[in-house]
Amino acid sequence: MDSSEARQRALVLVDKPSIVMMLGTVDAQGAPEIKAMVKMRNDGLRRYWFCSNTSTRRAEVLKHNGRSCLYAYEYAPDAEPLVCRGVMLAGTAELSWDDDLRRSLWQDFMTLYYPQGPLDPDFVVVQFTAERGNYYEGLENADFTV
Amino acid sequence: MDSSEARQRALVLVDKPSIVMMLGTVDAQGAPEIKAMVKMRNDGLRRYWFCSNTSTRRAEVLKHNGRSCLYAYEYAPDAEPLVCRGVMLAGTAELSWDDDLRRSLWQDFMTLYYPQGPLDPDFVVVQFTAERGNYYEGLENADFTV
Repeated sequence: MDSSEARQRALVLVDKPSIVMMLGTVDAQGAPEIKAMVKMRNDGLRRYWFCSNTSTRRAEVLKHNGRSCLYAYEYAPDAEPLVCRGVMLAGTAELSWDDDLRRSLWQDFMTLYYPQGPLDPDFVVVQFTAERGNYYEGLENADFTV
Repeated sequence: MDSSEARQRALVLVDKPSIVMMLGTVDAQGAPEIKAMVKMRNDGLRRYWFCSNTSTRRAEVLKHNGRSCLYAYEYAPDAEPLVCRGVMLAGTAELSWDDDLRRSLWQDFMTLYYPQGPLDPDFVVVQFTAERGNYYEGLENADFTV
């Protein structure tokens, strides 16, 4: 698997509509943290949008340190053939309260989390921009730039 | 949900035999990294053992910085009722090539990864020790000490 194929296969994985992605961040004490995020939208391999809450620990950490990573995988040890693939993307995450962006990502079920609707002050968008990645499948893996 | 209940529910989750856990680390440049690991064994909420390869980037990072986290989750948006729970554990990870430990974790299928068997120099054990955690389920979450 070369870089070009790794990039191609990684795109297939992150383009899956309901893929869960793990966001990795580093707190003020230098310790890593992980949180699963439901992807709302992505633009190829490069940019991703997630919904979060202004009041959370995650948002507080990202205000001070945007260096982050995204990770997604598929693992089905009992499938024939066995499925074991994943991608890690390194890049930066930033918070946005842009009204147009929040409106464009809004879905009805989200009132459960943001009772005031798309402009609820607690509704914040996490925008992740990837710079480089590593894709693995079975025993193979390859780095690529984004 | 109080700390005690969070700790109890987190234990149910990490005790699942085939749970996939994400290991979060910080590289020499201060950037976070994530890798899915298949848990080989755990001792309650406190200690976890995973198999890795001496030659990997992960092992290299852990030699220099053991601060790490473990994350596991279950997410089934279409289940009735919806399943959305997870745990993040903060602590430290260290590498071990102890022969007894490697033999005790050995399983036959692992020759695929370590052709020389349990004492293959490329077979390294990642031991994670948790100090504290956060458990979430639905919209609730609580911190706990381990």
